[in-house]
Amino acid sequence: MRPLAEYFPLLGWLKDYQRETFISDLMAGVIVAILLIPQAMAYALLAGLPAEYGLYASIVPLYLYSLLGSSRSLAVGPVAIASLMVSTAISQVAEQGSADYLNAAINLSFLVGIILLVLRSLRLGSVVNFISHSVLSGFTSAAAIVIAVSQLKHIAGLDTPRASTLDQNIENLLQHSQDTNLTTVLLAGFAFFTLWYCKNSLCCHLQRMAMPDWLVQPICKAGPMFAVLFGTLIVWQLDLKTQAGVTTVGMIPQGLPGLKGIHLDLELWKQLFTPALLIALIGFLESVSVGTALASKRQERIDPNKELIALGAANIGSALSGTYPVAGGFGRSMVNHSAGAQSTVASLVSATLVAITVAFFTPLFYYLPNTVLAAIIIMAVIPLVDLQAFKTSWTFNKADALTLSTTFLMVLFLGVELGILMGIAISIALLLYRSSQPHIAVVGRVGASEHFRNVTRHDVVTDTSTLALRVDESLYFANTRFVEEFILKHCADNPEIKHVVLICTAVNFIDASALETLEQLVKNLRDDEVVLHLSEVKGPVMDQLNSTRFVEQMGQGKIYFTTDQAMRELAGI
Amino acid sequence: MRPLAEYFPLLGWLKDYQRETFISDLMAGVIVAILLIPQAMAYALLAGLPAEYGLYASIVPLYLYSLLGSSRSLAVGPVAIASLMVSTAISQVAEQGSADYLNAAINLSFLVGIILLVLRSLRLGSVVNFISHSVLSGFTSAAAIVIAVSQLKHIAGLDTPRASTLDQNIENLLQHSQDTNLTTVLLAGFAFFTLWYCKNSLCCHLQRMAMPDWLVQPICKAGPMFAVLFGTLIVWQLDLKTQAGVTTVGMIPQGLPGLKGIHLDLELWKQLFTPALLIALIGFLESVSVGTALASKRQERIDPNKELIALGAANIGSALSGTYPVAGGFGRSMVNHSAGAQSTVASLVSATLVAITVAFFTPLFYYLPNTVLAAIIIMAVIPLVDLQAFKTSWTFNKADALTLSTTFLMVLFLGVELGILMGIAISIALLLYRSSQPHIAVVGRVGASEHFRNVTRHDVVTDTSTLALRVDESLYFANTRFVEEFILKHCADNPEIKHVVLICTAVNFIDASALETLEQLVKNLRDDEVVLHLSEVKGPVMDQLNSTRFVEQMGQGKIYFTTDQAMRELAGI
Repeated sequence: MRPLAEYFPLLGWLKDYQRETFISDLMAGVIVAILLIPQAMAYALLAGLPAEYGLYASIVPLYLYSLLGSSRSLAVGPVAIASLMVSTAISQVAEQGSADYLNAAINLSFLVGIILLVLRSLRLGSVVNFISHSVLSGFTSAAAIVIAVSQLKHIAGLDTPRASTLDQNIENLLQHSQDTNLTTVLLAGFAFFTLWYCKNSLCCHLQRMAMPDWLVQPICKAGPMFAVLFGTLIVWQLDLKTQAGVTTVGMIPQGLPGLKGIHLDLELWKQLFTPALLIALIGFLESVSVGTALASKRQERIDPNKELIALGAANIGSALSGTYPVAGGFGRSMVNHSAGAQSTVASLVSATLVAITVAFFTPLFYYLPNTVLAAIIIMAVIPLVDLQAFKTSWTFNKADALTLSTTFLMVLFLGVELGILMGIAISIALLLYRSSQPHIAVVGRVGASEHFRNVTRHDVVTDTSTLALRVDESLYFANTRFVEEFILKHCADNPEIKHVVLICTAVNFIDASALETLEQLVKNLRDDEVVLHLSEVKGPVMDQLNSTRFVEQMGQGKIYFTTDQAMRELAGI
Repeated sequence: MRPLAEYFPLLGWLKDYQRETFISDLMAGVIVAILLIPQAMAYALLAGLPAEYGLYASIVPLYLYSLLGSSRSLAVGPVAIASLMVSTAISQVAEQGSADYLNAAINLSFLVGIILLVLRSLRLGSVVNFISHSVLSGFTSAAAIVIAVSQLKHIAGLDTPRASTLDQNIENLLQHSQDTNLTTVLLAGFAFFTLWYCKNSLCCHLQRMAMPDWLVQPICKAGPMFAVLFGTLIVWQLDLKTQAGVTTVGMIPQGLPGLKGIHLDLELWKQLFTPALLIALIGFLESVSVGTALASKRQERIDPNKELIALGAANIGSALSGTYPVAGGFGRSMVNHSAGAQSTVASLVSATLVAITVAFFTPLFYYLPNTVLAAIIIMAVIPLVDLQAFKTSWTFNKADALTLSTTFLMVLFLGVELGILMGIAISIALLLYRSSQPHIAVVGRVGASEHFRNVTRHDVVTDTSTLALRVDESLYFANTRFVEEFILKHCADNPEIKHVVLICTAVNFIDASALETLEQLVKNLRDDEVVLHLSEVKGPVMDQLNSTRFVEQMGQGKIYFTTDQAMRELAGI
């Protein structure tokens, strides 16, 4: 039997767990909770749900991740981009604020969990590899902008309809701009300043005041908490809710969410499948990226398969808590790591603090203004906009730059789902296009050696009656006609060619389409009195060819072990 | 200015056209017309249109193809598989027999033509390469079976509803089987015998009777014409239409179809786009395959670009004649070739004969029983079922066998459109899967030479502290993580490794995702005190890397010109 720690990485870490490690985890857990509580409420609003559902999504999922996750530092919970995707997906099937909307969110969360577990059991986790760096980068930048713009209505205190694309959002804002509530704008300005100050200057000030480090750390990370605190106090004291019409979070039911049954709805699943798949893939990809990056700072590695299970379980836990999908957050994970998290015990601490808050302190959020939460979201997503990536990819690889900018524009103007799907489609189309045009080099002998190199790059000796070609790709349906055309054209242009040697160093397999093309090629060349030869055919490919009548059709002795041998023999040396 | 013959291959052939060539073309044209007239009517019925629309599609399209086509032997006109696809596509948007149905057929034909011309102008003809041999083979076999089964209702004289999949068709037949009209079955049996006899025995008998060859040829190919003739005579003489309720072609309006305007309907185009694309691609692919095969028998080649234009024009011509899509037919082209067609003048002859028939002789078809046309269709499609292909692909390449059988089953049970789309999707998914797992060889030195070969296949010398790897693929998003995992795992399993040499002989480019992975890999390996080196980096890739900070990050002197150099230096020789 395998050791339990194989399934529960936490058990492995607890084996040599010590008092100092716990203090470190406790500290990190507290700091993350201070950041998580306001963020969770903000992201729930972004997802179109009441604020408390963000908190509910920060308890059971974190416990489950702590038990099953393989990353010491990943901080799971509501995240900005998944929240945007949730709101986009659900608004297509249910009215915001309705029971159907919540039900759809729960089903979506369950579906995301199931998809992650299915990917694990089918060993298909590597499917995320098809979301290229450029697609993800363009997607993230654009989604961050869409999110930030979507929050402007809260900043301005406007009640505009939900919109999923940039232009709709801006149009809505402009239409209602005369209704802007200046008080909420001022509150937001104050929140922005608090967040900016805590992030950029507070730390230095406190350190200069010789405050002990264990106190500086949590205070500096508490920007969102301070913004919430001050915002709430101001609204409460000045009675801005009634006096100035400032929208606040309002009544949040006190007490922990019970684990509920899920009203599974297959018709709904059909509609939610594509968004669920995308949320699962993007959530998994982001979590693994952050997890890997942080683990490598400790010279450790995370296990993507365990992450699939842990994130799958976390999402099913989220559904059972009656709330919406979660993932590993970029910002909070960084904070968790730099605050010194040594294991997922830190997440246990965070979850427990959120649970205590939900159980006892929700009335404190009654006067919390939405505009402050909007400011927290905007400050959290701005660093995700990566304009540098455009420049870098443009100088490095034009195809990547094309993919990145197309994805970026599509997400901005067609919406997150369609945008990322188009991005993935474009990158795969470019890949297919490339694979249909393999690199073919006409080669010649380097001096008197046995090496053959590309005639266009090296100073080599060639033989006018023998054409030696190296195809840098296996031969299959997508590229086989390209290779055939190349050879036939070359022979037509150079009628003195009597022999063609196809060097198969890079041919790892030949499919049925390619075999047929090769058979046809032998015949066509023979009609022009040109003979086809193969050299350096790999073992498995030779076995494959021997199972057919192709070798027979080519004629005896047309397959050489080395190119050198082929060229010598054909030159009659 | 380019010579006109560049655009009109016919002009080139006419330059040295002689009396004998014309007689040859005339003969072939007559023989093809004898085959074409009954087939065209039969295929029109298969497409869900009145029989005369098959004849209309055999006049203008053939004239246009004659002028523009680059194949001497390709016989364009209504074909079985495209007819099935047309009926499947149109029945989804219009009721069979209605004016809408005909209008949809005309629009479909126009759209097919436009798509072919657009593919030509965007130089995207090579997109057909993504329909692999296995997909096409599975598709053709299954479509032939679906077509044959769909005709059984005519053989049995039943009036069952149209069905596009095999199981629906069989269910319909079984439900109505008690209504079988024995007279039609007998007529069909007689037609089958006539077709079989003409195809298999008549030729020998006539030759043995020392009949001149110019007479034997047309008589042997006239099986369908004889079947039509005898069937019509029997029904007429015995008055089977009223006496036994035999369904016949009935009244066909006499006279040539005028060139009509097309009622273009963009809403309809949206619905018909996917089927139009598939009909265009399959039609083009089949035509080019047949055309290429027949041209190579004369040591000639056809020009796929010219074929796109010629087939595009033929389909637009078909739409203007008020009828449905055409393509190059397999069977008739073979007949055209073996009957001695020397140029597209043969098609001009065929088209003219069809025109004369439409203008004067349509009343002769009044008593032509549908069951005979069904028998003609069945005999024409049976050779398309290629069971041998299953066996061959199974021994040669399992992935091909999987693609072939899945496509086959999907077409049978989900319908032609969905079936071929799934087939294409599967073959591309397998291609992507393969591209995400490139071949990586750990290599060692062959004896004392400068050659490095796979350690698992050759007897080579390796160095325990240096791992030399050759990745047989460019590095890009789909495979980069696989390569990274491979290297990290290998190093983790062999802690004595201090240097990794990545041999880049097969790396033709590196994309942004791969660059990021490489940067990460350098850091991760460095943390484990392993140094990454590159060798044999190709010129363009080196330029690419030099545009980034990667070379700097790797450290000085980590890129070697040859693997030999790298291995010597790292071994301290």
